[in-house]
Amino acid sequence: MTVSEFSFELFPTKTDVPEFGVSGPRAGQFHTPHGSVLTPAFMPVATQASVKGLSPEEVRAVGAEIVLSNAYHLYLRPGVSTVHNMGGVQEFMGWNGPVLTDSGGFQAFSMGALRKIDDDGINFRSHIDGSAHFLSPKLATQNQLDLGTDILMCLDQCISFGASREEVVAAMERTHRWAEMCHQHHADSGLAKRQALFGIVQGGTFEDLRDASTRFIADIPFQGYAIGGLAVGESKDQMYRTTEQVASRLPQDKPRYLMGVGSPEDLVECVARGIDMFDCVLPTRVGRNGAIFTKSGRVDITKTRFLEQREPVEQDCDCYGCRNYSAAYVCHLFRAKELLGARLASIHNLRFILRLMANMREAIWEGTFEEFRREFHENYVPTSEAARQEQKEKWLRARGA
Amino acid sequence: MTVSEFSFELFPTKTDVPEFGVSGPRAGQFHTPHGSVLTPAFMPVATQASVKGLSPEEVRAVGAEIVLSNAYHLYLRPGVSTVHNMGGVQEFMGWNGPVLTDSGGFQAFSMGALRKIDDDGINFRSHIDGSAHFLSPKLATQNQLDLGTDILMCLDQCISFGASREEVVAAMERTHRWAEMCHQHHADSGLAKRQALFGIVQGGTFEDLRDASTRFIADIPFQGYAIGGLAVGESKDQMYRTTEQVASRLPQDKPRYLMGVGSPEDLVECVARGIDMFDCVLPTRVGRNGAIFTKSGRVDITKTRFLEQREPVEQDCDCYGCRNYSAAYVCHLFRAKELLGARLASIHNLRFILRLMANMREAIWEGTFEEFRREFHENYVPTSEAARQEQKEKWLRARGA
Repeated sequence: MTVSEFSFELFPTKTDVPEFGVSGPRAGQFHTPHGSVLTPAFMPVATQASVKGLSPEEVRAVGAEIVLSNAYHLYLRPGVSTVHNMGGVQEFMGWNGPVLTDSGGFQAFSMGALRKIDDDGINFRSHIDGSAHFLSPKLATQNQLDLGTDILMCLDQCISFGASREEVVAAMERTHRWAEMCHQHHADSGLAKRQALFGIVQGGTFEDLRDASTRFIADIPFQGYAIGGLAVGESKDQMYRTTEQVASRLPQDKPRYLMGVGSPEDLVECVARGIDMFDCVLPTRVGRNGAIFTKSGRVDITKTRFLEQREPVEQDCDCYGCRNYSAAYVCHLFRAKELLGARLASIHNLRFILRLMANMREAIWEGTFEEFRREFHENYVPTSEAARQEQKEKWLRARGA
Repeated sequence: MTVSEFSFELFPTKTDVPEFGVSGPRAGQFHTPHGSVLTPAFMPVATQASVKGLSPEEVRAVGAEIVLSNAYHLYLRPGVSTVHNMGGVQEFMGWNGPVLTDSGGFQAFSMGALRKIDDDGINFRSHIDGSAHFLSPKLATQNQLDLGTDILMCLDQCISFGASREEVVAAMERTHRWAEMCHQHHADSGLAKRQALFGIVQGGTFEDLRDASTRFIADIPFQGYAIGGLAVGESKDQMYRTTEQVASRLPQDKPRYLMGVGSPEDLVECVARGIDMFDCVLPTRVGRNGAIFTKSGRVDITKTRFLEQREPVEQDCDCYGCRNYSAAYVCHLFRAKELLGARLASIHNLRFILRLMANMREAIWEGTFEEFRREFHENYVPTSEAARQEQKEKWLRARGA
């Protein structure tokens, strides 16, 4: 379906997760001029207009329908006008689907040197060549319009976990003012129907601030709403709690995007809490280091024992790597530092995540999500838990227990 | 065509390069249990059972029919028995075609630490973990048989350019003795028809030694003959002269393999002198650094001017990269240090070389090779020549000339 306007629709599903009531799991689809995307959706990360090491065909083959890029990175290199002249970020990178861009505020502040932030925007120096730049809400919005992205994000101020209430309040209020400015510039652009703009809720882990921010941002008629400032160091329980709280107070008829999440277990738990969209570098980043997702948890493919395994890394996986290579070969590639290893692991991990999303959508459609969720947790041992168990066993062994 | 024995056939062609007489360009085909290969052939290098960064499908798509791997590397990692247990190097790496392995003598001597060479073989320590190893002619042959390679190379002693006549004689004579031992072990293995063994001519750049070595090695009934010890620092003219000399004295009915060559201009000049097989890391190695082959010579894709080029790197190239991406995007990938850049450049450069080989075969079949060769040189400026020209222009500019 080719459309000229952004829109979102929810499938009529009966939720079976009584624990979260109306803010339970939901399935839907959004439409953009570059294609439609079933939700809950996971967006592979193409920070610099490339999902690290993979071709667009490989990204499509793992089941991705949308990718995320970063306006800070593209603004600095190759430059917004270069991408614009090449027909927009989709054509530039050869991706025949929609692209969402982050505004780049987070990167300007975290990667830029000598940065200074005030109500007007962010002054920073490029992490590449030290050149001076200024990013205002208006420019951040215009950059994303010029990049031709299908979904733009508001410029916001994300602060680190552990900041004082005072700092969180100040960043939140600035984020609110910037949200109004971004919305105004977007509305005036004449492109607002074609290129959607999402607002971002901040407020740290303070319950009342998150409520206030949700109310403020939800009052602005954005085409979608994101939860920012999570997965920055708080506990998983805290992250789930805040996600549940904000999701339950966001408009029902707009997509909800949890930024920077996550691990398989986080995806399941946050879909359960009504999130529609996710992005995370985890599958490709850990894949490049040889960590491979399986139904029972992450494994380290570089371990010597895999050198004897004729079977694929994950027996019934339908990814390109598992269909064509033994675990022994993938293990060898990593030990020999061959680039193909990182590529096969990235493909596998993305396929694992995208298949997880597809299975969750199926379960929601069928009204069996709670059963799916229980089975997932019965099989999958999260990495942090696996590390804890391993440490405990080592500790006990060392003591002859 | 599936066959169980190695064989080689020459197409009846009329050579049109009077300059080289009967030792002029030739076209043919060799057959192996894993597939047939048209000659003159170029073998992409898969040192550690992987053409750096590329999938076997991508290597096949550029037109390669055979790849080269290295027995030294596979012996140390993952180990010969691992590859053997996985069904041989072809199945291990997912390559549905023949594989030639170098014996690894060169690497054991050049990469191994604390190595000591005598008439029995090479004592060396692994460059990976320092473990002690010994490579004899017999073991080098057995390793390659166990790896399941279609074409094995004799263990030889290759010495650096500039060695004294005395050193060259000693290495050559050792190479001759080892050739006899390799041939004997191979003949006794019961696998000699299925897995071919090639002898290697040494002798440095001494004309009489090359003659003596060619006579000695050609007297042993190998299934093919290689010219070793070239492209190690001697001038291009010297390399061409030695190639011509040896090729003209090798048996007409066996394939001739020039090891470690080469650049586009070297391939054309050595096909002209009757070489049938080549291997070289050049296309992938320089590609990973952003050097791209074009009909007029190598270009540096990282230059800023490419950021404005909507057209592909090479306009009428049929490689995956040129069919799908602008030069601007490839340039961006390199500047942003994205892995996909190295992959696209490797694919392009290999396609360039494999297309060059196909065009040369076509020209030989048609009896128009001399015309092809003239046109190639009219268009293609070798890198060394381009660098010389550039230097001269800079020098003149600096002097206001």
